[in-house]
Amino acid sequence: MSLRATLDFLLYQWLDAERLNQRPRYAEHSRETFDAVFETCARIAADKFAPFNRLVDTEEPRFDGEKVILPQATCEARRAYAESGMLSAAQDYDIGGMQLPFVVESAANTFFAKASISIGSNMLTSGNANLLMAHGSALQKQVFARNEFDGRFTGTMCLSEPQAGSSLSDVATRAVPDGADYESDPLGPRYRLTGNKMWISSGDHELSENIVHLVLAKIPDANGRLVPGVKGISLFIVPKKLVDVDGQLTGERNDVALAGLNHKLGWRGTTNTLLNFGEGRYPVRGAAGAIGYRVGNAGEGLRYMFHMMNEARIAIGMAATMLGFAGYEASLEYAKNRPQGRLLGEAGKNAAAPQVPIIGHADVRRMLLAQKAYAEGALALNLYAARLVDEQHSGEAAAAAEAGLLLELLTPIAKSWPSEWCLEANSLAIQVHGGYGYTRDFPVEQYWRDNRLNMIHEGTHGIQANDLLGRKVRMAGGRGLQLLTARIQATAERAGAHAPLAGYGQQLRQAWDAVLQATEQAWHWAGVTGDANRTLANAVPYMQAFGHVVLAWIWLDVACATLEQEGDARDVRAQGRLAAARFFFHYELPKIGAWLQVVQTGDTTCVDLIEEGF
Amino acid sequence: MSLRATLDFLLYQWLDAERLNQRPRYAEHSRETFDAVFETCARIAADKFAPFNRLVDTEEPRFDGEKVILPQATCEARRAYAESGMLSAAQDYDIGGMQLPFVVESAANTFFAKASISIGSNMLTSGNANLLMAHGSALQKQVFARNEFDGRFTGTMCLSEPQAGSSLSDVATRAVPDGADYESDPLGPRYRLTGNKMWISSGDHELSENIVHLVLAKIPDANGRLVPGVKGISLFIVPKKLVDVDGQLTGERNDVALAGLNHKLGWRGTTNTLLNFGEGRYPVRGAAGAIGYRVGNAGEGLRYMFHMMNEARIAIGMAATMLGFAGYEASLEYAKNRPQGRLLGEAGKNAAAPQVPIIGHADVRRMLLAQKAYAEGALALNLYAARLVDEQHSGEAAAAAEAGLLLELLTPIAKSWPSEWCLEANSLAIQVHGGYGYTRDFPVEQYWRDNRLNMIHEGTHGIQANDLLGRKVRMAGGRGLQLLTARIQATAERAGAHAPLAGYGQQLRQAWDAVLQATEQAWHWAGVTGDANRTLANAVPYMQAFGHVVLAWIWLDVACATLEQEGDARDVRAQGRLAAARFFFHYELPKIGAWLQVVQTGDTTCVDLIEEGF
Repeated sequence: MSLRATLDFLLYQWLDAERLNQRPRYAEHSRETFDAVFETCARIAADKFAPFNRLVDTEEPRFDGEKVILPQATCEARRAYAESGMLSAAQDYDIGGMQLPFVVESAANTFFAKASISIGSNMLTSGNANLLMAHGSALQKQVFARNEFDGRFTGTMCLSEPQAGSSLSDVATRAVPDGADYESDPLGPRYRLTGNKMWISSGDHELSENIVHLVLAKIPDANGRLVPGVKGISLFIVPKKLVDVDGQLTGERNDVALAGLNHKLGWRGTTNTLLNFGEGRYPVRGAAGAIGYRVGNAGEGLRYMFHMMNEARIAIGMAATMLGFAGYEASLEYAKNRPQGRLLGEAGKNAAAPQVPIIGHADVRRMLLAQKAYAEGALALNLYAARLVDEQHSGEAAAAAEAGLLLELLTPIAKSWPSEWCLEANSLAIQVHGGYGYTRDFPVEQYWRDNRLNMIHEGTHGIQANDLLGRKVRMAGGRGLQLLTARIQATAERAGAHAPLAGYGQQLRQAWDAVLQATEQAWHWAGVTGDANRTLANAVPYMQAFGHVVLAWIWLDVACATLEQEGDARDVRAQGRLAAARFFFHYELPKIGAWLQVVQTGDTTCVDLIEEGF
Repeated sequence: MSLRATLDFLLYQWLDAERLNQRPRYAEHSRETFDAVFETCARIAADKFAPFNRLVDTEEPRFDGEKVILPQATCEARRAYAESGMLSAAQDYDIGGMQLPFVVESAANTFFAKASISIGSNMLTSGNANLLMAHGSALQKQVFARNEFDGRFTGTMCLSEPQAGSSLSDVATRAVPDGADYESDPLGPRYRLTGNKMWISSGDHELSENIVHLVLAKIPDANGRLVPGVKGISLFIVPKKLVDVDGQLTGERNDVALAGLNHKLGWRGTTNTLLNFGEGRYPVRGAAGAIGYRVGNAGEGLRYMFHMMNEARIAIGMAATMLGFAGYEASLEYAKNRPQGRLLGEAGKNAAAPQVPIIGHADVRRMLLAQKAYAEGALALNLYAARLVDEQHSGEAAAAAEAGLLLELLTPIAKSWPSEWCLEANSLAIQVHGGYGYTRDFPVEQYWRDNRLNMIHEGTHGIQANDLLGRKVRMAGGRGLQLLTARIQATAERAGAHAPLAGYGQQLRQAWDAVLQATEQAWHWAGVTGDANRTLANAVPYMQAFGHVVLAWIWLDVACATLEQEGDARDVRAQGRLAAARFFFHYELPKIGAWLQVVQTGDTTCVDLIEEGF
C-alpha cells in the first residue's frame, strides 16, 4: 500500500487526527489543509530528494582544506524544504509558522525520510530552533531561532566528546566568562569555550549562511575546576560566524574549527564531524576561546537539551521506520516483476511452463509480510507517540498529564523498536532481491546501511533499555505503566467484538501480564542483589519483549479500526492490514517468551563471566 | 580466546582429530604436522591477508577496457596461498598434495577467512579442481586440475544465468558439438557454447595465467531444442585461453567475454562478473561459440556440480563464522580498552571517579557473550560437519554411510545458521563500538557488510530451508533424522554426568522432541492440503528452530568435553566455554518456541494474502 494511503488510514481513520481542529490552536486546520501539506511534501520529496539518494551516498562530504563540499543536489533539496515552510511547521502563525499538530508534521516528514533519509535529516535545525523558542531569550529567539526557521541558518546539537561518548557527566568542554562585562551582551551572557565535540551532525558545510551550534559545556568553579557529573553542565549558543543583534553577519569567523569528517557506513548525505572549539585556528576579538552565549540559567543545560529529547527520539524512530518502508516498497516491486522458478508441488512440475513472479513463492511472501508488519506497525506506533505529544501540548490538563506520562514510557520503544526491526526489514528486502540485493544497482543495500545508525544515535539500544527498565516503568510510582495497561486492556476488549480477531485480545492480555510480572521480578532481583548493574543486565531483552507487546497492541488496535470502517474488510488494503496484524500475533508475539525468561529468572550469566574468559 | 586456542580445543580435545592418523590415508600425519600447517597459515594470513583487508574493500576491482585490475596485494596474497600448498591440501602426495583430512584443511583455512574473507576466497579454485579430480578424464585432471592446484590457473563455477538465478532448470546456455570430429579431442568432447552467466566469482582478472570455467549448459536435441528442467544439463570446461595437451597456452583467446563487474555491498576483494560465452567478441578457430570440453557424460552436469556442494556450503558457513569471529575479537579488544561511563548503582555514584572500560557494563558483556556463543558455536558446528566429510571419505563402510547421511542433513544448517547468526554477531560488534563502529575507521562495519552475502550465495536461506524440510528430513525414510536423534540423545545422556550442566540435557531433549513433532506435523499438513507450496510456507522458521537446537546440542557436547578435561573447569578458557554454553541454553534455545509454533499449526497467513493486499 502506498505511503500516502497508509498515512491517511492511520491519521484519519485510526487516530482521528482531524478532530484536533476542535482545539483553538489548530482551529484553522482541517483535513484539507493537512492534505495540502502532504501533497507539497510528497512532491518536493519526489522531485528534490528521491532522485539523489544514491548520489549523496557515493559523493560523500569532503573537506577541501577550507570548505566542506556537498553535492549541489543537497543544497537544492534543503532550499526546497526550507521554502516549504516545514522548518517552522509547529510554530505560531505570527512568526511565520503553520501551527501544525506534531502528528501531522511527523507524517509530513515521512515523505522526505523515505525519499532520502540523509538528505532529509532536517530534524536538528528544527530541534535546535524549537529549543531556543522554549528556553532562549527574546533576542536569541529573534536572532538565531527565527533565522533557522527561515532557512538562512542551520543548527546543530553538540553533546558528545571523544573521551566521553554517551557519558555526558564526563563533558570537559570549558566555558569561562568573556571579560568583566560578559553579562551585558544583548545576545546573552558571553563566554569563551574550549573543548572538542564528537559526532556532530551537520557540524560544517556551506549549505547555509551560518551554523548555530548548541553546545553543552561546564563553567569552572571559583578554583577553576569543572564540577564532576551532569549538574555542572550549561548550554551555549556558539555561532560559526558572529552576528549582530539584527542577525546580520559581522564578518568575524568564530573559533569553531573542523577537526575531521567521520567516514560512515551510511547516512552519507549529512556531514558528521569532530569540532574543536577555541583551539586558536580562528582567533576572534583578541582573546582565546570560541565565543558562546549562555541559554537560560547556568547548570541547567542538560535539562534544556532533554526538553526536546522525546521528539528527537520519535524522529529517529520515524527515520528507521521510513527506511523500513522504503525497503518494503522496493522489494515488493521487485517481487511482483521478477520471474523466477515455478511453484512447488504439482503446479511446478511442468518445467516447460513459464517462470512465475517470485511473489508467488511462499517464503518471499513471508519476507514481504514481515516487512509490512514491521514498517507499517512502526509507523503506527510513531504516529501514536506523536499524537501523544500533541495531547501533552494542547489537551485538557488531565489528558495532557496522562499523555505526558505515556509518552515518557513509550519513547524508548518508539525509538528502539523501529531501529531494530526495520533494520531487519531492510535485511529481508535484500534477501527478496537475492544476489541483486547485494549489488549497488538496487537501493536496498543502502537502506540497510543507512538504517544501522538508528540503534546507535540519540541514545543506543542499551541506553534506551536502561531508561525503560531503570526509570520509566517506575516513574510516578508506576503510573505510566498503569496508564499503558489500561489502554492495552481497552484494545483487548475492543477486539472481543470482532470475530476475525477472536483470541488476539486474550493473547495480548497474557503477553502484557507476562511483561508486568517480569517488571516486578526484575526489581525483586534488584532488592535481592542490591546491585543495579546486575538488575539491568537483561534490560535489552526486557525492552525487546516490551516493544513486541506494544506493537501487538498497536496492530490489534489498527485491526479493530479497520474492521469498524463499514465494508472496509473486503477492501484489499483492509485485507493487507488484517494479514499484517495476524502475522504479528502468529509469528512475532510468541518471541517474547525467550526474552522475558532471562528477566524473570534474573539471569546473570553475562555479568558473572570473568573478563579473561571472553 | 584466540582462534588458535579455540581450534586446538575443538580439534584435539573435542573432535579427537589427531586419531585420524590411525587411518592409512593420514598415517603420516600427527598433531605436529597439523600444527605446522596451522602455523604456516596463521603467518601468511597475518602477513599477506589481514593488512590488506580494508584496502581491497576501498580499491574495488575495475575494468580498464581490456583487463580487470585488482590491487597488487591481492596478487601477492594469492601467490603466498598457492605456495603454501593449501590449494591441494586434500590431494594425494603423488600429485603434490598434502593428504590432509578435510577437518584440518577447514581449520587451516579459517586463518585466511578471518584475516580477509574476500581475498581469502580461494574455495572456488580448489573446488573446481577437486570436481575435475572426481569426474574429469585423466588428461583433464592433468591439464586443468593440476595447474589449478599449482596456482598457475584459477577456477570458477558458472551456474546462474541472468534470467534464471537459482532456478537451474531454466539454464539456457547452449552447447553444440564442434564439428564432425568433436568427440576425438584429447581434452574431451569439444563443443561450442553460447549464453550468459551471472554472479560468476573470480570470473575475470589477471591473477593467474589462465581461468578454467566450469560451465553448466544444455545440449540441444535433434530438433535443436533445449530440454526443459535440470535433466538436460551437462558440464563443460571452458578455459579463458586455449591450452594444448601439455597445459601450455596456445596463444588463442577463447570467446569468453566480460560483460560487466557487479558492484557489491561487500566482499570486494573478489570480482563478481557477468560473462558472455560465444557472443563473438573473441572469435576463435573460425566458428561461432566459446570452445568447451565436456566433463563426463552428457546430461549429468548437475550431479557432478552437486558432488561438491556439501563442501562448498560448509565453506560458506565457515566464511560467515570467521567474519563473526573477527568481529568478536575486534569488539572484545575495543571493550577492554575503551573507558566510558561508570557502573550503575552505588559503584557509579562517584562522578569524580575514573571511567571504567566498557566491558564492565552488563549490556556490553551480554553483547560480547552472544558473539562468542554464535561465532565459536558456529565454528564447532562447521568443524563437526567437516569431520563428517572425513568419516564419509575414510571411515569404515557403516560409519561412512552414517556420516554421509548426517552430513546431508546438517549441511543446510552448517551453511544457513552461521550466515544468519554470525551476521547478527557482526551487528553486535558494531553496537559495542557505538558511533565508532559506524565509521570506516574500525573494521566491524566491513565484516557486517561482507557477511550479508552469506545468506544469499550457494543457495539462499529459503533454498536451504526447502532442502532441509522438503527433502533432507525425509531422505532414506528419515534415517538421517534418526541418526541425529541418536547423537543428540547421547549428548544429553553425557551431560547428565556433569553437575554444572544439570538440566541442559533435559532441555535439549525437549527441544529436539519439539522439532521432531513439528517435522511430522508439517508433513501432516502437506497431506491435508496437498499443496507443497503451503507445506513449505514455514520452512525458514522451521530451519531456524532446527538450527538453534543443533547449536544447543553442539554447545552441550563442547561443554561436556570441557568438563571432562581434568582440572580444565577452573581454566579461564573453560569458564568462557561453559558460560557461552550456558548463554546459549538460557538466552537462545527458548527462541525455538515462536518458530515452531507456525510450523506446528501449519500457518498460512503469508500465502493466503492476495497479492494486491501487500
